[in-house]
Amino acid sequence: MITQKYKDMLGAKSVIRQMSEWAAGRAKEIGSENVFDFSLGNPSVAVPQEFTDKMVELLQNRDTMELHGYSQSQGIPSVRAKFAEFLNKRYGMDYTAEHLFMTTGAAGAVAHAVRAVTQPGDEVIVFAPYFPEYDHYIGQTGAVLRVVPADTEQFQINFEELDKVLNPKTMAVLVNTPNNPSGTVYGTETVKKLAAVLGAKQKEYGHDIFLISDEPYREILFAGVDAPYVSKYYDNSLSCYSFAKSLSIPGERIGYIAVNPKCTDSALISPMCAQISRGIGHNCPPSIIQIAVAETLGITSDLSVYETNMTLLYDELVSLGFEVVKPGGTFYIFPKALEEDSVAFCKKAMNYDLVLVPGDSFGCPGYFRMAYCVETEKVKRALPALRRFVGTEYPGKGHLA
Amino acid sequence: MITQKYKDMLGAKSVIRQMSEWAAGRAKEIGSENVFDFSLGNPSVAVPQEFTDKMVELLQNRDTMELHGYSQSQGIPSVRAKFAEFLNKRYGMDYTAEHLFMTTGAAGAVAHAVRAVTQPGDEVIVFAPYFPEYDHYIGQTGAVLRVVPADTEQFQINFEELDKVLNPKTMAVLVNTPNNPSGTVYGTETVKKLAAVLGAKQKEYGHDIFLISDEPYREILFAGVDAPYVSKYYDNSLSCYSFAKSLSIPGERIGYIAVNPKCTDSALISPMCAQISRGIGHNCPPSIIQIAVAETLGITSDLSVYETNMTLLYDELVSLGFEVVKPGGTFYIFPKALEEDSVAFCKKAMNYDLVLVPGDSFGCPGYFRMAYCVETEKVKRALPALRRFVGTEYPGKGHLA
Repeated sequence: MITQKYKDMLGAKSVIRQMSEWAAGRAKEIGSENVFDFSLGNPSVAVPQEFTDKMVELLQNRDTMELHGYSQSQGIPSVRAKFAEFLNKRYGMDYTAEHLFMTTGAAGAVAHAVRAVTQPGDEVIVFAPYFPEYDHYIGQTGAVLRVVPADTEQFQINFEELDKVLNPKTMAVLVNTPNNPSGTVYGTETVKKLAAVLGAKQKEYGHDIFLISDEPYREILFAGVDAPYVSKYYDNSLSCYSFAKSLSIPGERIGYIAVNPKCTDSALISPMCAQISRGIGHNCPPSIIQIAVAETLGITSDLSVYETNMTLLYDELVSLGFEVVKPGGTFYIFPKALEEDSVAFCKKAMNYDLVLVPGDSFGCPGYFRMAYCVETEKVKRALPALRRFVGTEYPGKGHLA
Repeated sequence: MITQKYKDMLGAKSVIRQMSEWAAGRAKEIGSENVFDFSLGNPSVAVPQEFTDKMVELLQNRDTMELHGYSQSQGIPSVRAKFAEFLNKRYGMDYTAEHLFMTTGAAGAVAHAVRAVTQPGDEVIVFAPYFPEYDHYIGQTGAVLRVVPADTEQFQINFEELDKVLNPKTMAVLVNTPNNPSGTVYGTETVKKLAAVLGAKQKEYGHDIFLISDEPYREILFAGVDAPYVSKYYDNSLSCYSFAKSLSIPGERIGYIAVNPKCTDSALISPMCAQISRGIGHNCPPSIIQIAVAETLGITSDLSVYETNMTLLYDELVSLGFEVVKPGGTFYIFPKALEEDSVAFCKKAMNYDLVLVPGDSFGCPGYFRMAYCVETEKVKRALPALRRFVGTEYPGKGHLA
């Protein structure tokens, strides 16, 4: 018999996916240029030419057995050494190749990190608003996800609420900065305070609490933003990265875990992740992609368009009277909806061909997410639709909020 | 605290890996040309030029967002449609894109297939000799691996022993043909008989028994060998494939599950596998590799060297008096050792710089595996070492066996 657990999951399509499918259907009716689809977090800027050139060069000049051969389950050693060196230089860390584990994107990184530091029944804390796939990365390990309600003032951390959720079963805390969906970046003060709280709780409970930092948007930072490297401030930390956004290659599924050399059993965690991989048979990311990202380290797509788009949207939203925290990075913004029921709000927006995602999906009802990884031209053309939507459905409301 | 389960796995390095590491160390002492390393199943023939050319062409001509973008979790629909069409033409099946699930190699395929059709506590049957990673693909799902002792006459299926292992908890049977480590291929008679036995047991037990067929060596077949497509003979079947061996790209981690359209819930299994992937965060194999293999379907590396090597080794082993079944495919051969303790036998061989793997690793003690995916020149130069080894350590023994 097929497995009921996974069969049951089939009905529950994500709201983001539903929105995006509606948008695709609507695009067939009125043309995709007329649908203002802010639903999906797909990078929209071209892959850097350097990456493409490197791939071609590897294919044309490298011995095929070396290029396409098995890599170690932890990842190709020379690739891991390059990442360690890069991170050390940029963030003043002391990683070696042994602290790196190559993954299929940040998704694989977070899922492996959770498995490496929790047992079934342990609790893992996340902060609302949070990326809904965390439910799966955490839940399918047998660990229990606990959600700290949002700090809706600034989308930093609500420490009062965190204190209520922490307990001796807490084995890991998962943060995501720059944040999907809020676009905010945890400042140095926030990270230091979190480190102090967790450090004290480790002593109180007499066991490690690991801080897993999911950082796929680390390179998409806006001007003047305070963006500390989380692992710098807490020893028991695992930094999860993906090249999906920085190189616009989400389909190539490439990322890594960097294990803080100061954490408990730091030398064991990357090899343990390799053992975890054996169980699902995925082993490691593709060799050629590992080599190509390692040989183009530090290069990114032209990410400046995201700040341009953010500024356009932020200014318009503010002028329409929305309550909204200014994003410090990513390609998301997370304003408060103009009615309590953000699902109803987003449904109404569809009548104006605006595709927004309700905050309910992110554990933060009453808000909505816009993913502005679209062409600037399209953002500009969406502004009148946004004005019509607000003016018609919520006359006077926005300006009064 | 880090997870004890995975920490405990760290000590247990596979014997194959240990042998291979010894060989690498020895190569540094006496030169790799003087070490006859038959331990690892790494393809040794070049990647076909058509694959390299296709990759370059995609990189140079395809829109980067399309080429490197997210694929559906089941895999890119057009890629899956191409595989379905290819399999239908070659094997007379009726697959559609919906029956295909793209995986990270045959490893990912087998691990997902087991998860899709078993619950923790269910039993999955394998036939000795078997690939030792099956312990992990099966064990880490919570299902229980049951081993049917080998048919050492022909390395087909020992049906008498199978009958003893089958019971109402049997939910899946995993076969691997052409077989690692024996090199034998299940003939039509074997497959038909297995299908009849499982069909009868399904009725008797009143539930499905899925046949998972692991086929990474499907393209490496020797002249005149009867090699039926397993799924043709049994409705509840999942065919697992990898391009690692046929294109010599093991590091690119690309394969698929083809779900028999006639199996129970056939339309659900591929989407369920996508749900399984979410739990480990691996999602799907890299987009560019999916597209490249789909656009070079039917092309393989020059696999003829493996038959040349097999013939050289088989003839020599026979003339030295080994009991050995002639392989029908793969790049493995699995002779009977010249003493009962095959670990001792393989250790003695190391004194002659011959790296062999004891059959104990494959659930079949008393035998040993040679992986002849090495240059023919090296096979030829290994023959005198083999003769010296047998003549010195087992004088007269081989010829008497």
